[in-house]
Amino acid sequence: MKKYLCGVDIGGTSIKIGLFDIDFNLLERFSIPTNLENHGSQILSEIAFAIQEKTSFDDIIGIGFGVPGPVFRDIIQKSVNLGWERVDLKKEFYAIIKRDDIVIHVSNDANTAAFGEYKHGVAKGHTNVAMMTIGTGIGGGIVIHGHIVDGVNGVAGEIGHMIVDHKYDFLCNCGKIGCLETVASATGIIRVANYKLKNSNLDSALRNYHHGFSAKKVIDFAKEGDLLSTQVMNEVADYIATMFANITYTINPDIFVIGGGVSLAGDYLLSLIEEKYYPYALPFVTKTNIKLSTLGNDAGIYGAASLVKP
Amino acid sequence: MKKYLCGVDIGGTSIKIGLFDIDFNLLERFSIPTNLENHGSQILSEIAFAIQEKTSFDDIIGIGFGVPGPVFRDIIQKSVNLGWERVDLKKEFYAIIKRDDIVIHVSNDANTAAFGEYKHGVAKGHTNVAMMTIGTGIGGGIVIHGHIVDGVNGVAGEIGHMIVDHKYDFLCNCGKIGCLETVASATGIIRVANYKLKNSNLDSALRNYHHGFSAKKVIDFAKEGDLLSTQVMNEVADYIATMFANITYTINPDIFVIGGGVSLAGDYLLSLIEEKYYPYALPFVTKTNIKLSTLGNDAGIYGAASLVKP
Repeated sequence: MKKYLCGVDIGGTSIKIGLFDIDFNLLERFSIPTNLENHGSQILSEIAFAIQEKTSFDDIIGIGFGVPGPVFRDIIQKSVNLGWERVDLKKEFYAIIKRDDIVIHVSNDANTAAFGEYKHGVAKGHTNVAMMTIGTGIGGGIVIHGHIVDGVNGVAGEIGHMIVDHKYDFLCNCGKIGCLETVASATGIIRVANYKLKNSNLDSALRNYHHGFSAKKVIDFAKEGDLLSTQVMNEVADYIATMFANITYTINPDIFVIGGGVSLAGDYLLSLIEEKYYPYALPFVTKTNIKLSTLGNDAGIYGAASLVKP
Repeated sequence: MKKYLCGVDIGGTSIKIGLFDIDFNLLERFSIPTNLENHGSQILSEIAFAIQEKTSFDDIIGIGFGVPGPVFRDIIQKSVNLGWERVDLKKEFYAIIKRDDIVIHVSNDANTAAFGEYKHGVAKGHTNVAMMTIGTGIGGGIVIHGHIVDGVNGVAGEIGHMIVDHKYDFLCNCGKIGCLETVASATGIIRVANYKLKNSNLDSALRNYHHGFSAKKVIDFAKEGDLLSTQVMNEVADYIATMFANITYTINPDIFVIGGGVSLAGDYLLSLIEEKYYPYALPFVTKTNIKLSTLGNDAGIYGAASLVKP
């Protein structure tokens, strides 16, 4: 009898794979490097091979995939990170494994992470969930009434591109200015800090780093009271809070979940965001949940596996 | 046999009531004034009375209500316009009509209008719908996968309070600054125009109106090429477009519907908004539907009746 659910989280550098039993106990977690050669044309067969090395497809009920890029009705519209143009992953994976007794579902990776937190993490039991993943960029996912919201172009949850900045006009990877990602991602934090170093005389420990610094450095110095770093983090939190407020006035989620590398700033970041959020949300919302991801890097595989057995 | 569906759209000055057959043909539409005395305590019994004057409750399958204020799980959290604090409308209405064979559902009025457009108007056949009603204020409603999104505080769709302005800092009725409503509602348009009249030397036909002017005047002059009025409408459209983009990055609707008095500006307003929207939405969204409401003032009664038989 079939006994495993499989969650696959495809990233630009590595692919995480999780095997779960039907009660969603994580039995095994492994990863393979992402083969970007030939526009990522080997990625799917390498995933199939890696799964087969661990277990027989006879034992697998279904496989869920989280993919970096917009997905609409199981079709990946484009994945810049993987070098994919329009890919019908479901069809291609069936063609590789040559069996149709396995359920396959596909969603955007950030949506999948949000779904993971909703099904098995900090957002469990909530109805409307908005998740934001802050790393090099900013991703996000929306779950409403138990379903991932993809949107007609698969763009739902791409909250890194919400227009919030009217001050710095940094250029985003997407070609626009004003995107949340340009001022509140790890690279955004560094950018805002560099701008302030150049355009103010504020004393800062960051001035000793002549060859650059990480976002973590800015956060650590801010926690210690460094003036310029504190100013940076206040602004970053304000941008995120504005965006949370705008999401509130759209879908009024019961919980905001923050994940990704920058979320390691922990309670310090949460308090800053909360402090800035309520003035924007009042008088309509007096209390909302703003929490850190509890599944961390595993949110994707949990969510992907949950696509199969929601 | 029961044969009618009833939709009730409660406004601050009048209450619109529609009787529909089960195929949603509008058989009769009537209205009564909103009795605001004693914190609106007579409103529900007056509605019951008005319906009974037209038909017997024996013939009514169900009644849907659209109410100005946040609603969560059929409970009105508060309605400033009606003078209501927390009201369990369903329970109170059952107590008045003393029969439980009639289905009753309640939602926010703007959500109800959005639902009306989704079921019977311009948004029919679409999956994710965002509606904006521009009148004295700005309201809105969100429908996803066929369901109204209320949100945990009933605040979903309150897009008039999305933070978009960082320039004028006009005070909103809600006590905040930056709200879309302060710069893009009918009153917002007048406010922006007055600001520009005072703070620029631009020539404008509006300068001849010493005792004030309507938003319609600004729109009409803009259509005729009046420089200052054109500047005002360009800014207003830009605020709306920014907000549409931010909604796109949250739920990526297949259609935006614009209703309310200001929507009478018609194609002129649509083109302006589209022109500003795409630069914010690209490269993720190259084509979306931005349309005028087709049900107009009847959207509320259509939507309310549809709550009963979705």
